[in-house]
Formats: sequence, structure tokens, C-alpha cells
Amino acid sequence: MADRSKVIRHTHGQWEGIDVRRYKDGDARYSGVTRRTLVGDGQDEAALRFITRYFEVAPHGYSTLERHEHPHTVIVIRGRGRVILGDTVTAIGPLDCVYVAPGTLHQFQAGDEALGFLCIVDRNRDRPAMPSEEEVAMLRARGVPVRVDG
Amino acid sequence: MADRSKVIRHTHGQWEGIDVRRYKDGDARYSGVTRRTLVGDGQDEAALRFITRYFEVAPHGYSTLERHEHPHTVIVIRGRGRVILGDTVTAIGPLDCVYVAPGTLHQFQAGDEALGFLCIVDRNRDRPAMPSEEEVAMLRARGVPVRVDG
Repeated sequence: MADRSKVIRHTHGQWEGIDVRRYKDGDARYSGVTRRTLVGDGQDEAALRFITRYFEVAPHGYSTLERHEHPHTVIVIRGRGRVILGDTVTAIGPLDCVYVAPGTLHQFQAGDEALGFLCIVDRNRDRPAMPSEEEVAMLRARGVPVRVDG
Repeated sequence: MADRSKVIRHTHGQWEGIDVRRYKDGDARYSGVTRRTLVGDGQDEAALRFITRYFEVAPHGYSTLERHEHPHTVIVIRGRGRVILGDTVTAIGPLDCVYVAPGTLHQFQAGDEALGFLCIVDRNRDRPAMPSEEEVAMLRARGVPVRVDG
């Protein structure tokens, strides 16, 4: 399709024409996460060097605890939860922004309500890596509530 | 500053540590627009190749009618308004996304309420160009309600 401007309408809690996708392939450990790619992942938006996705984490769910070299920009647009960035834990809610720098181990966790956020990344990016069991044990020893049992 | 992860908290309608900036320098024609750069515009986020800004258009205000080669990804997070993309006019509201393709003449206009949106662009990008008087006249002849009197 030609590279042309468009509006992707949001109605009744959904974006028109945008499918819900599997969050991850393979054995990445997570719970209750869905993914939608809003803008940038198709030939019809080939000029974009970045992709805007929407992730939703169900109550008590969590994204994969992982790190990678490409940075993330995240903006919360629904609900509340917390983000783990290295060995820090921060409560997050509507319109809070998160910058995940290269190499920072990170995880998004929902509490009693679903947590929905936009996440913008480079179109071309490296694959995430999960931490070792030793690193997970070290974080837990410091009181960081990481989840890897998905 | 080191390139490191962080949370930019949103409280009382503002992002902590984020200043309101002048929307444009020079003689670009617009009305009632403010700009905030949320993530990506500093040495502390040097790994990011894209910048996430927040624009707010006051009631009955409008952004500059312009075009450029870099694409935009826009997500409405406050209020309602309309977007002009070439010779089309589309009503937009909360969580609607807009993709502005390279070269598309575009303008965001607020109605009776303020219109606030995230706008993500390449860090390195070309300068916008405004249309000629002839092009504006042609659009108006087609009924497109462009504003250039800012």
C-alpha cells in the first residue's frame, strides 16, 4: 500500500483495523499481556523508523523481565501498576512516561487493575535477553519483586 | 548526564520536570499551541532516535499548516478537534492515532475544547514548509477549513 496519511480511530476501547497480537513468541516468561501495533509496522507506513505499539497487562499480570540495547519510550494510558527498572520499583499511572535506557533490565506489572501503555521502539532493533537465575536471585535478595514464573 | 532509565511522573495535569516551550520560532502561523518535550530531546536520552512531544491546542486554536518529509505519529490524549490531511478533514478524539506521511500538508485544530496529543518524530528531521497562497486558496475552494491567519 502507498505511504499515505491516515487516522486510526479509537472506539469502544479498540482501534479500528488493529488486531490483538500475541505478546511474544517462544518461551519468554510473562502473564496476561496483549500487544497491538498501532502505527509503523507495515509497508503503508514505510517512512517511519519507529513503531508505536499498545500493550495491555491484565490484573496481576506482568511483561517479560528482559533487557536489550534499543531504548523504549513508554506512556501509560490506562490503569495503574508498577515498573521495575534495574533494582528500582516505581508506581505508574495515567500519562506517566517511562524511558528505558539501553541495557536496563525492566518489567511492567499490573496491580488490581489492568495496565495499558503505549511503547515506542525503533523499527530495526535487537532481540531482548532474559536475566540469569543468579541475577533474578540477586534482585529478589534486594527486595525487588521480579516475576519470572509466567 | 548518563543515559539511564527514568520515570517522568504526570501529576495535576503536568509532567514533573518538563517545561512548557514555545511551539515554534519565527513567523509560522498558528494560534494557541504549546509544546512539551517529554522524552528524547536531551543527552540523557541520547540512545533514542525519536522524540516524544506533547502539544496542546487551546479552544479554537490551530497548529501551523505545513508539510515536511519526516513522518509524524500522533495519539490524542485530551479533548477533541479535527485534523486536516491534504484535502481531507477528520474529527479526532481520545486515543485516536494519526499517521502523517511524508509530504502531506497537515493541521490540527481544536474546537470548543482544548486538544492535546502526543507527537513522535525522528530526532534528526527536515524543516517544515508552509503552503503557497495559491495552494491555500485551492484548498479553501474545495471547502477545506485551513487556517493561516495566526
